Amino acid sequence: MAGEVRKLALLGASGSIGRSTLDIVARFPERYRVVALGGGRNVETLAAQARRFQPRLLAVQESTGAAKLAELLKRDGLDIPILIGREGSLAVATCPEADIVVAAMVGAVGLEPTYAALEAGKDVALANKESMVMAGRLLNRVATATGARILPLDSEHSAIWQALNGESHREVEKLILTASGGPFRDFSPAEMAAVTPEQALRHPRWKMGPKITIDSATMVNKALEIIEARWLFDIPPEKIEVVVHPQSIVHSLVEYVDGSVLAQLGLPDMRLPISYALGAPERLVLDLPKLDLAEIGRLDFFAADEERFPALKLVRRALEMGDSGAIAFNAANEFAVDRFRHGVIGFLDIVGTVAAVLKKTRPRNFSSLQEILDCDTRVREELGAEMTMKMKTRD
Amino acid sequence: MAGEVRKLALLGASGSIGRSTLDIVARFPERYRVVALGGGRNVETLAAQARRFQPRLLAVQESTGAAKLAELLKRDGLDIPILIGREGSLAVATCPEADIVVAAMVGAVGLEPTYAALEAGKDVALANKESMVMAGRLLNRVATATGARILPLDSEHSAIWQALNGESHREVEKLILTASGGPFRDFSPAEMAAVTPEQALRHPRWKMGPKITIDSATMVNKALEIIEARWLFDIPPEKIEVVVHPQSIVHSLVEYVDGSVLAQLGLPDMRLPISYALGAPERLVLDLPKLDLAEIGRLDFFAADEERFPALKLVRRALEMGDSGAIAFNAANEFAVDRFRHGVIGFLDIVGTVAAVLKKTRPRNFSSLQEILDCDTRVREELGAEMTMKMKTRD
Repeated sequence: MAGEVRKLALLGASGSIGRSTLDIVARFPERYRVVALGGGRNVETLAAQARRFQPRLLAVQESTGAAKLAELLKRDGLDIPILIGREGSLAVATCPEADIVVAAMVGAVGLEPTYAALEAGKDVALANKESMVMAGRLLNRVATATGARILPLDSEHSAIWQALNGESHREVEKLILTASGGPFRDFSPAEMAAVTPEQALRHPRWKMGPKITIDSATMVNKALEIIEARWLFDIPPEKIEVVVHPQSIVHSLVEYVDGSVLAQLGLPDMRLPISYALGAPERLVLDLPKLDLAEIGRLDFFAADEERFPALKLVRRALEMGDSGAIAFNAANEFAVDRFRHGVIGFLDIVGTVAAVLKKTRPRNFSSLQEILDCDTRVREELGAEMTMKMKTRD
Repeated sequence: MAGEVRKLALLGASGSIGRSTLDIVARFPERYRVVALGGGRNVETLAAQARRFQPRLLAVQESTGAAKLAELLKRDGLDIPILIGREGSLAVATCPEADIVVAAMVGAVGLEPTYAALEAGKDVALANKESMVMAGRLLNRVATATGARILPLDSEHSAIWQALNGESHREVEKLILTASGGPFRDFSPAEMAAVTPEQALRHPRWKMGPKITIDSATMVNKALEIIEARWLFDIPPEKIEVVVHPQSIVHSLVEYVDGSVLAQLGLPDMRLPISYALGAPERLVLDLPKLDLAEIGRLDFFAADEERFPALKLVRRALEMGDSGAIAFNAANEFAVDRFRHGVIGFLDIVGTVAAVLKKTRPRNFSSLQEILDCDTRVREELGAEMTMKMKTRD
């Protein structure tokens, strides 16, 4: 590294990826400086991060949170502007000083800031896979136009990025995403139907936020990652496969035209892909627990069961439909996961909702952010209206 | 590839690597032409290869083989010059038309032709690991001087080469060579002492020639590969480790300074590393059976047992001693394997011989081919004299 300090704006600072990102940044004070932090409702964490990293700008989700955060900062004698909601996220994403934006918000709400950051020519380290799922085609176009880079933060996509290093894309036969298979890999349909939110929130390998943990249990997460990989690496969907690997040591693989396969391995620790994205094209010297294959002893691989996890089949249909399919897939899932977490629908109804919405969706591609956001809103509104109708019918 | 035909000279044509190389060449007649073939005693195979590939030059080990080969060629109306022995190998290695020399002879006899090819500025695809073990320092110097490249053909070193692609050497934390562990991985010392040549010649994963199969059973092969890796990748020996992986699917791995590990995987088929070396920097489109991880199901890893396989400890001492250590290690092993195959010594005596020779060897580095060859000869002569003495004493 040329000794230059890279300036970071971080969205989703108080979440799992956000905290891991700041762990890396704190290890290399001579390389990175935090200039803006955006968080959700966890303002205590955000206040502590603000104390530690002294950004020039803060953003939170709601005005009550902003008031509380202002109070906490005042106690420490800190005077940092606090912005709220969409305006706040966009301000963090386009913060003039920032060279790189870490987009680690959860869900579709991450799209606008990601778009704005790329439009402003900033590199985006992307953990918010929904951005790429909803608008991969558009985001690639914007990035190409402004010269910004989209750097994968997901462990799977980081693995593929690393395994592709120095290789020609023409020589890729397929990308193989590994999946832990989630906690219900061996559940019967009846057991699956009875899964509670508490069960779904316990992931066997990775400590993650609640939305992505439930997405892992339904394997919707892997479905979204297929769409994400399709755009991140500009690879036709039929060249992207999934293999179940419960130990989460092999993070993903690339098969080349000669039959050779390159894989990236490591202990399941998000700090690894984060540091790779922040350091690229250099690797940062990290003193984390190291992979010891002899100690791990055994790595298992299974075919992904598309009957038990129909999200993996549905995503193929969504991809064939184009942008509207991917947007509907994601919006329906977000809506249904929220309903499931509130005990309104069952576990199997999550993917059931996605299937029903896809059936009604008309295949379309979009060329503007507004069209994409409108499509997303329409799906959610229709689902909301249906849900209300059903509740009324039931009364 | 720029459409240019690469001209190949192949030493060890009738052996396992030689035949696999010609299998690849035959698939890409528009890319490769065979200009010279050197073989050992199997002149029938060599004659068939000559018919198929029509080289301009042939070499065999002995004059009786040459006469037989000439007769076989005459039957087919072929008129190709046949050279014999050391002169023959050197002629193949320095054949003026060749761009690339595939060095697939077995044992120390491969060193002189490898040196000659590099000195003549030809790229060398190197399966003859003994060359690199005996003279890695010297061969690297010659290659740098003439601009020739040394391309690994061993599956392990090819895996490392692939996993290093595009990465900076400064960022390598360690190289991890995988070892099948051979057929005696779980043998007790008593069982090991009673191993017969027939048992040692049955390798569980790879079909290879007899010398390397026995070297796998003693794990001397892995020890030689450590020395080879040390020179091929210019990596200090303490950064090279071994992990036992019985399925031979992960061919080797590179750990980087950030803790990330890149691995190359594939079915055990030597045509893969051969095609990578011949095609580099491009990959050839190969229609070989593909790795299916879900079908394989499980990959196991064990720590290498240096008590059971003392070759792995001895090689560290040999490396500390410098060139004379590596040469003595290799020469003693070649001598002892030959004695073992003839039933003169037991299985454990192979590595016992290596240990005894190392003890008597004085640490030295060499700067010329002649010094290296002399050192090799001296070890063999002394071992021969000792063996004769022992036989006499026994009478």
